[in-house]
Amino acid sequence: VEAIRRGDPHPGLGVPAPRGVRAVPAADVAHALADADAAIVGVSSPGIHWAGRTLAASLPRRIPIAMITKGLEPTSAGVAILPDVVREALPQAVRVHPVAIGGPCIAGELARRRASAVVFAGRDAADVRFLADALATPYYRPAVAAEPVGLCVCSALKNAYATAVGLGAGLLEREGGARGPVAMHNLEAAIFARAAIEMETVVGALGGDRAAALGLAGAGDLFVTTSGGRSSRLGRLLGLGRPLADARAELGNPTLEGVDVAAIFHERLPAGVAADDVRLLRFLGDVLFGGADAARVFEVV
Amino acid sequence: VEAIRRGDPHPGLGVPAPRGVRAVPAADVAHALADADAAIVGVSSPGIHWAGRTLAASLPRRIPIAMITKGLEPTSAGVAILPDVVREALPQAVRVHPVAIGGPCIAGELARRRASAVVFAGRDAADVRFLADALATPYYRPAVAAEPVGLCVCSALKNAYATAVGLGAGLLEREGGARGPVAMHNLEAAIFARAAIEMETVVGALGGDRAAALGLAGAGDLFVTTSGGRSSRLGRLLGLGRPLADARAELGNPTLEGVDVAAIFHERLPAGVAADDVRLLRFLGDVLFGGADAARVFEVV
Repeated sequence: VEAIRRGDPHPGLGVPAPRGVRAVPAADVAHALADADAAIVGVSSPGIHWAGRTLAASLPRRIPIAMITKGLEPTSAGVAILPDVVREALPQAVRVHPVAIGGPCIAGELARRRASAVVFAGRDAADVRFLADALATPYYRPAVAAEPVGLCVCSALKNAYATAVGLGAGLLEREGGARGPVAMHNLEAAIFARAAIEMETVVGALGGDRAAALGLAGAGDLFVTTSGGRSSRLGRLLGLGRPLADARAELGNPTLEGVDVAAIFHERLPAGVAADDVRLLRFLGDVLFGGADAARVFEVV
Repeated sequence: VEAIRRGDPHPGLGVPAPRGVRAVPAADVAHALADADAAIVGVSSPGIHWAGRTLAASLPRRIPIAMITKGLEPTSAGVAILPDVVREALPQAVRVHPVAIGGPCIAGELARRRASAVVFAGRDAADVRFLADALATPYYRPAVAAEPVGLCVCSALKNAYATAVGLGAGLLEREGGARGPVAMHNLEAAIFARAAIEMETVVGALGGDRAAALGLAGAGDLFVTTSGGRSSRLGRLLGLGRPLADARAELGNPTLEGVDVAAIFHERLPAGVAADDVRLLRFLGDVLFGGADAARVFEVV
């Protein structure tokens, strides 16, 4: 907040905020929202309950809410998507269906106005349409999906699966690295393909539109997430044989959404999901939480 | 053939053939096949008719045939998969249904015995099973698909779509290259996702099992093909604005399977495929054959 107020580059993205952006601390959110046409939630997933409470205390009236926060939350019945979690926190007068935003969108590229195609989905079609129209630019193109479960499930799972794909890089290094131009792309691609299939199955089991797995929010977001970032770097360290705690520390103790998602499926499977349906995701849980050898990933793809 | 006979490394792969491999020139194929349990065709796609004629003249009796050659061939009715093209060339006594092999399998990695998960599919289930069992090793694992159209269509299209994904790298360079850690991964991922959706649609329209698009032969093979190779390098050059002829020359005039596939869909759409269903593939054809500006790819993803 202080950096943006000073006009400095965003500390994480390296570019200044566009002219007209006003940064306020959390304590002033109610004031900042007084005239707002919409609210967009961008906290990391562990902060989603805080964000829900903050919105509940700050929204002046019913306005559309969008969310780029990704994740799933275990419930007694299975798992909940985060827009539904936020909705539950809102008082009746402002209780909207938040709109989920997914698809391949590395923040640093979007901040530099590079072409980004994304997906908006929610249970309130009018709010989805309003936000998609309001936020579209020549370089940011929202498509609208029929329902939010497919998008939210894929957006959450892709972090775990990007970690699984990342195992290949670590296994290769453990074996002594690339020999000439030869890496371990065949294995990584087999993990990628298995991940896409498992995402589709979980989406279907949780009542979502299975088509999400093949599109921007599924294969597209998984593709971009494997090209860098925390999730794939974690995979590399696991592939090298590091325990989760060591790997996490080596990465600087960031939020690791994929670890949280893998934990959900490691502890208990949602109704309608069989263990073999998500054998790759379960194996990742075994590596993360049970000390399984990452080299055995070939057995589950 | 001469290099393998001398025990030298394979000129393309950089490793010697395993002990027991015997290399013979094409003129001696009939002799080499006299005691064979199976034949495997590995010519590049323009050689497939030659391979069919050679097998027709050389097969001593009915034996299973496998094919790693990828491609599609235009017919009066639409397109044919290459196993059917080879079958047509065979005399009645040896007329088998060749088995197609697909999935993410860079030859250099397989030659070094890196973990590779592949797919076998054909119209003769017994031959598929025989070959999958005969060729399986601890590092080469064939899965069996229900039917061959999905696999063959994806295997052929993925070369074209890898070229489309590769446009991103060239467009980025044209803009002055990566700034800091920021590339054009969002656009590449959007192209990837659109490619996966189009592959599924074409598979369905041609009567194949749409599930192929999400698995090893579809998203998996596309993923590995985007990580290097001729097809993605061609995309980079097109993204930089080079005409096809120049790009082809710069690559050393290799066989470019993706260009041939794009040409089929550029000239005439198979029955059941609408232009918008394959708008990305058609756009690639416009870039390849019509001088369209690669930068407009964002409009079709």
